[in-house]
Amino acid sequence: MINIIDLSKETSKYDVLKGIIERGDKESKSITEAVEKILADVEGHGDRAVRSYTLKFDGVGLENFEVGSDEIEQAYNSCDKDFISALENAKERIWDYHKRQLKESWITNNQKGIMLGQLYNPLERVGIYVPGGTAAYPSSVLMNAIPAKVAGVKEIIMVTPPSSQGGINKNILAAARIAGVDRVYSIGGAQAVAALAYGTETIGKVDKIVGPGNIYVATAKRMVFGRVDIDMIAGPSEVLIIADESANPRFVAADMLSQAEHDTLASSILITTSKEVAQATLKELEIQLEGLSRKAITEKALRSYAAILVVESIDEAIEFANGIAPEHLELVVREPFSVVGAIKNAGAIFVGEYSPEPLGDYYAGPNHTLPTGGTARFFSPLGVDDFVKKSSLIYYDRASLEKSKDDIIKIALEEGLDAHANSIKVRFE
Amino acid sequence: MINIIDLSKETSKYDVLKGIIERGDKESKSITEAVEKILADVEGHGDRAVRSYTLKFDGVGLENFEVGSDEIEQAYNSCDKDFISALENAKERIWDYHKRQLKESWITNNQKGIMLGQLYNPLERVGIYVPGGTAAYPSSVLMNAIPAKVAGVKEIIMVTPPSSQGGINKNILAAARIAGVDRVYSIGGAQAVAALAYGTETIGKVDKIVGPGNIYVATAKRMVFGRVDIDMIAGPSEVLIIADESANPRFVAADMLSQAEHDTLASSILITTSKEVAQATLKELEIQLEGLSRKAITEKALRSYAAILVVESIDEAIEFANGIAPEHLELVVREPFSVVGAIKNAGAIFVGEYSPEPLGDYYAGPNHTLPTGGTARFFSPLGVDDFVKKSSLIYYDRASLEKSKDDIIKIALEEGLDAHANSIKVRFE
Repeated sequence: MINIIDLSKETSKYDVLKGIIERGDKESKSITEAVEKILADVEGHGDRAVRSYTLKFDGVGLENFEVGSDEIEQAYNSCDKDFISALENAKERIWDYHKRQLKESWITNNQKGIMLGQLYNPLERVGIYVPGGTAAYPSSVLMNAIPAKVAGVKEIIMVTPPSSQGGINKNILAAARIAGVDRVYSIGGAQAVAALAYGTETIGKVDKIVGPGNIYVATAKRMVFGRVDIDMIAGPSEVLIIADESANPRFVAADMLSQAEHDTLASSILITTSKEVAQATLKELEIQLEGLSRKAITEKALRSYAAILVVESIDEAIEFANGIAPEHLELVVREPFSVVGAIKNAGAIFVGEYSPEPLGDYYAGPNHTLPTGGTARFFSPLGVDDFVKKSSLIYYDRASLEKSKDDIIKIALEEGLDAHANSIKVRFE
Repeated sequence: MINIIDLSKETSKYDVLKGIIERGDKESKSITEAVEKILADVEGHGDRAVRSYTLKFDGVGLENFEVGSDEIEQAYNSCDKDFISALENAKERIWDYHKRQLKESWITNNQKGIMLGQLYNPLERVGIYVPGGTAAYPSSVLMNAIPAKVAGVKEIIMVTPPSSQGGINKNILAAARIAGVDRVYSIGGAQAVAALAYGTETIGKVDKIVGPGNIYVATAKRMVFGRVDIDMIAGPSEVLIIADESANPRFVAADMLSQAEHDTLASSILITTSKEVAQATLKELEIQLEGLSRKAITEKALRSYAAILVVESIDEAIEFANGIAPEHLELVVREPFSVVGAIKNAGAIFVGEYSPEPLGDYYAGPNHTLPTGGTARFFSPLGVDDFVKKSSLIYYDRASLEKSKDDIIKIALEEGLDAHANSIKVRFE
């Protein structure tokens, strides 16, 4: 199913993986143009345009997009009780972790007459996009809404496309209630992104749009960036597992499969110092694949974007991991904490064999919205920081400004900006 | 020159200012297409394409883009000594302020068997764009490079377009040396952004591109976003001054002019509770304008995008300021610190009459790269946070995972992801 690649015999490990790294939907001209049109229509015609695209793409004629609180309540009450309790427990852990990300505004107080500071304020209104169909994940509702809630965002608006009967998955609605979402609209696609970015007669415009979506949603988010903030351009999901000879191949294979079942673009990579672990994991993959309900998707993802690599040393594996900058990185080695300090690029690091990726996907507390496709080189997990903005504070009294005035005037004049210099000068004339 | 608008007599204060808020260059189809072509050319042909665009747009045939360290040293030595000393003093203050933004990686240690954390790592390579011509500001070099340096970025690369003689402004080179920039390339425009994003034979690709530029540079940055990170889409600059009857109209007018001299799209708005201050400021604007070297630009900016508004109360002025979300906000009122807590949306807040904007532009320490055009609703000043990325850390031991396993399995199965559930199950079979 997957070839085991011995990296000591390959010229370049990155060539081996180029196809994996550069997988993912590309924005095409036709998608860009389609999205441009949708954005312009919604900006110009508001609800009317949203209504017409919802009919066209979702096959539903909706007069009113908002999902009533009674409908949400009903959904919550009709859910499996153990599921609700599991979500509540997850919420508590996610909340506790994100609470630790909150920052206090600060000021300096080390110089008489001068006070400098950095002030934090929450965003006022945030939109959360939740995909429909089989990719409608209640865990994503928690992971997107809770950091906003912890940050102090006043209004959290969720949008999610309606089914062809016009309804919304009850688990999603229950998760919205648990997470504290303020409003739910049953709209999706680029038209939902446009409605959030521009506002319509019934939908208020937001300051930021977060959450995953298909290529139309991603393109729309990129296009409205600047008019509102967005989280990141999310690509397909991936896991990289670093394993030594101590790793249990059953666990490793199970974790690779849990990644691969997401969609046919998902990528699972094992990099190990042990040929035996490589061989045994391959066997386990074949055995465990058989029983899976999403076998077809999983198998396709494995065939296209999985790899098992054998290296000489853990250091080599680390260097490789930093080059790939994986979304999820599992460290299944004898001394996993000795590796952590060498990891520079990874969305989330799972330490040791009892910290599998699904623990982080649902439950442990850190966010599951993570940078994909190598963007962990510069992007970060979603968190409270994404829902606050900063303002600088500058206070000088007369004496302090006077002491600095010659330097400021000098720089202003060298930059050819004499009105800047004057703004200092007039205060001392 | 400017009309004084009495807001108690206007129906909507935002209508009055719509033109001001929505000023700024728009990306047009022709610009988008031109930039797309440049990006594709540089991605495909590397240095050769950069060379040909540099000849085309800057009129210079450069064999080698890199500016040698001897040339930088020579520029530094030939600068005005007082200017160098002023820049060194500014550097010290900027460094000190940004040092306070550094965050420590943290872990939880409140539960046996569980450790969660957030790890910080600096970006590895960063590109700084510095515009050429009259907008070549040494202060911008400091403001963009120092936070990256403080964050621990390994390599900082500056690009700036060459003059038609092929050289680079000596003040810019001196600022690069002072700020600790590692490499300087004399290239500009969308081709420079492309070179930084994709890399060429001689220019290494970076993780993030920061710095202001014209509409081609801004469009290129937006297009490469996702492949690399970018700072923000910067629009034209603005100041909003809240003043009461205690304000000195000479100071207020000088500050409005210092904003207006930037370029013809710059906006200066005064909002005051005092008709007398409004009138006197208007008179002062006319008087002080006369002596300015950039009088033509300044006057054009004032005529197009300045406003003086009279309101009934400071609360009304605050509400207005939060609606505008200005880049720079000056509080020139009797008790300025009593206003700070009510400001939700502003890039930088200048408190009291001896804290004029140029103090922040050059010297006090906070960054002068600030969100413009109302984006202070969701964007923040450039800072150390922009040059680090975070990774989550998750460690559970066997007993801790066992306690959580039923909840995790339940959520996975409700989401229809049984390989996720299996990844937990296999560990306890």
